[in-house]
Amino acid sequence: STQIDWSDDAAEKGGYAHYMLKEIFEQPDSIWNTIRGRMDSDRGNSVLSGLNVQPRDLAELHRVLLIGCGTSLNAGLVGEYAIEDFAGIPAEVEQAAEFRYRNPIVGSKDLVLAISQSGETADTLAAVREAVDKGALVAGLVNVVGSTIARETGRGIYLHAGPEISVASTKAFTSQVSCLLMIALKFARAARMSRERGVRFVKEIEAIPDQVREVLKQNDHIAEIAENYIKAESAFYIGRGYMYPVALEGALKIKEISYIHAEAFHAAELKHGSIALLTEELPIIALVPDGPGKDKTLSNVAECRARGSKVLLVATEGDDEVNDYGDDIIRIPAAPLHAAVIPATVALQLFAYHVARLRGCPIDQPRNLAKSVTVE
Amino acid sequence: STQIDWSDDAAEKGGYAHYMLKEIFEQPDSIWNTIRGRMDSDRGNSVLSGLNVQPRDLAELHRVLLIGCGTSLNAGLVGEYAIEDFAGIPAEVEQAAEFRYRNPIVGSKDLVLAISQSGETADTLAAVREAVDKGALVAGLVNVVGSTIARETGRGIYLHAGPEISVASTKAFTSQVSCLLMIALKFARAARMSRERGVRFVKEIEAIPDQVREVLKQNDHIAEIAENYIKAESAFYIGRGYMYPVALEGALKIKEISYIHAEAFHAAELKHGSIALLTEELPIIALVPDGPGKDKTLSNVAECRARGSKVLLVATEGDDEVNDYGDDIIRIPAAPLHAAVIPATVALQLFAYHVARLRGCPIDQPRNLAKSVTVE
Repeated sequence: STQIDWSDDAAEKGGYAHYMLKEIFEQPDSIWNTIRGRMDSDRGNSVLSGLNVQPRDLAELHRVLLIGCGTSLNAGLVGEYAIEDFAGIPAEVEQAAEFRYRNPIVGSKDLVLAISQSGETADTLAAVREAVDKGALVAGLVNVVGSTIARETGRGIYLHAGPEISVASTKAFTSQVSCLLMIALKFARAARMSRERGVRFVKEIEAIPDQVREVLKQNDHIAEIAENYIKAESAFYIGRGYMYPVALEGALKIKEISYIHAEAFHAAELKHGSIALLTEELPIIALVPDGPGKDKTLSNVAECRARGSKVLLVATEGDDEVNDYGDDIIRIPAAPLHAAVIPATVALQLFAYHVARLRGCPIDQPRNLAKSVTVE
Repeated sequence: STQIDWSDDAAEKGGYAHYMLKEIFEQPDSIWNTIRGRMDSDRGNSVLSGLNVQPRDLAELHRVLLIGCGTSLNAGLVGEYAIEDFAGIPAEVEQAAEFRYRNPIVGSKDLVLAISQSGETADTLAAVREAVDKGALVAGLVNVVGSTIARETGRGIYLHAGPEISVASTKAFTSQVSCLLMIALKFARAARMSRERGVRFVKEIEAIPDQVREVLKQNDHIAEIAENYIKAESAFYIGRGYMYPVALEGALKIKEISYIHAEAFHAAELKHGSIALLTEELPIIALVPDGPGKDKTLSNVAECRARGSKVLLVATEGDDEVNDYGDDIIRIPAAPLHAAVIPATVALQLFAYHVARLRGCPIDQPRNLAKSVTVE
């Protein structure tokens, strides 16, 4: 389904029709590049020397603040959940401009994690400077080596995801999430997580590249499904817990490149107002991989179907319980939900890509957008 | 512009065409009922005996968590900002279902404020029980006296806003925000806020009912403006800081009753993807009252206008700086932004009401919605 045209331009894209598709397909490798050499499977821990935070420091930590914009903000939300879940440290994600202008409450016992693919995002950089001035521990999570945020934070983790050319971010997000899972592991091991659980956690992270490969194999299937959604002008993405940031990121992708007005909700929030918009013309994309929250989200899906909405599910391979809830289903391999974030997101990246392609949108040059936002 | 029909039904509505409009117009009184007897203008403090939290307890507080769903969640966000700004206590707002299912990190040094008009919202009630079991201080902010959340929290504040019949909440929101400002004042006075600043803060709150009256006088003007927006299928609401929750609440109102797919953004977040949706058909509603963040939001507005978007501004009376940025302007009286939240929201309630009326929508019986959500 992908058009191949061996012009010079196409050669740069490695035979893919768009940089975005090329980068989606690079993800098993880019994620591997992010995690390799950073996991100690014997100690059940991650090795993040650039972060320069010792277990003894972590015991003193009051809060972790994750700041970013756009896709990086969505990744930050996964980090918030994982750090709270596994390390028991209160964490909060905040839009960088809001953090900056709100005279934030941060001090020497707070860690501020600044997330930015380019390392040059203006609002995130300004937030970093504010956090530094307030005496917080500030670390960067950036892709571009030597970028301003990397330099000014002085500590942090490089994604090693390779250059991201596509305006709509794909591999940066999955590498950001991979890093945040490694950070959560490190913090959790300094707290109450056992070595044994840590060893399993390492395996859960290391399994992600292969799980992404499984999703990529369904490219043609996802392209077929996409045809059923190209007429929509609006769409709702819903999820709970770890699947909420996936819904946000899935909605953002389709907005950016296909110009469908997609909006993401906590599945539980839908009925507190926004469900009034539902008609047969407004499809629902629901994240229901097997795990906590699945059943509750499925009942929200049932409410939507009762109003005539078409439903696309992202569900676990072999989970037949969901079959009656969706018109279309994309399957992802079985995984604990903190890890399932990544394959589930890749499924929605491909879905957004094909919807945009079928709608004839200029995928690598989306209207009104620049790759990195270096103005406020 | 309001149709009067003295059937029995209309009599119950006090001559207004809809309960929603009646309740919008009740707000100068309902807000006054919320605040009267609860302010000490001499000590520059609020008197909230039902909260049963002493200044000595407040010094020990680590975090305030505000939980709710829908409109109550939007009110909670104002509370988060005000408590952080004035009291310097880290605060966080969380969707009640998410709080509940995420094994929240709360303990005896955390105050959980549960916000619910009905006091029966299923997810909020379940979150209250979880917080109680974790040993947190739990207080309710409810309207319905004797409701389950009021009883189970054992401490809290009644809104005294009177019965809210309209499915789309209006006066409950403005009373919730009024309470949250009084809570922020109490917490701030227990921290670093001077008596003098407290006295001014009391005056700022007491001025709100009259400011709302000024907005209501513009009902006919707002009805005229509304005609320019009735053809939109999507709309973006933008604001920064205290105006971000106003944007969220304004967007929720128009979704609920006029079925326009409105979405709210931090003004700074727009350019990180969603700006791709902008066309001449997608109007922008921007909150730019005079104060911090106004200039930055105005530059975001300018970017939108450059893409052909029609712009409705909510701005301060007499602020001519904004004139060139909007196609239409609704004016609110000059006020510090934490107080301006309320008149600005009332302006957007009226705007949503008139757009829905002109689109012929069943305002008091919006599609798919129930007044209080007592199922999960």
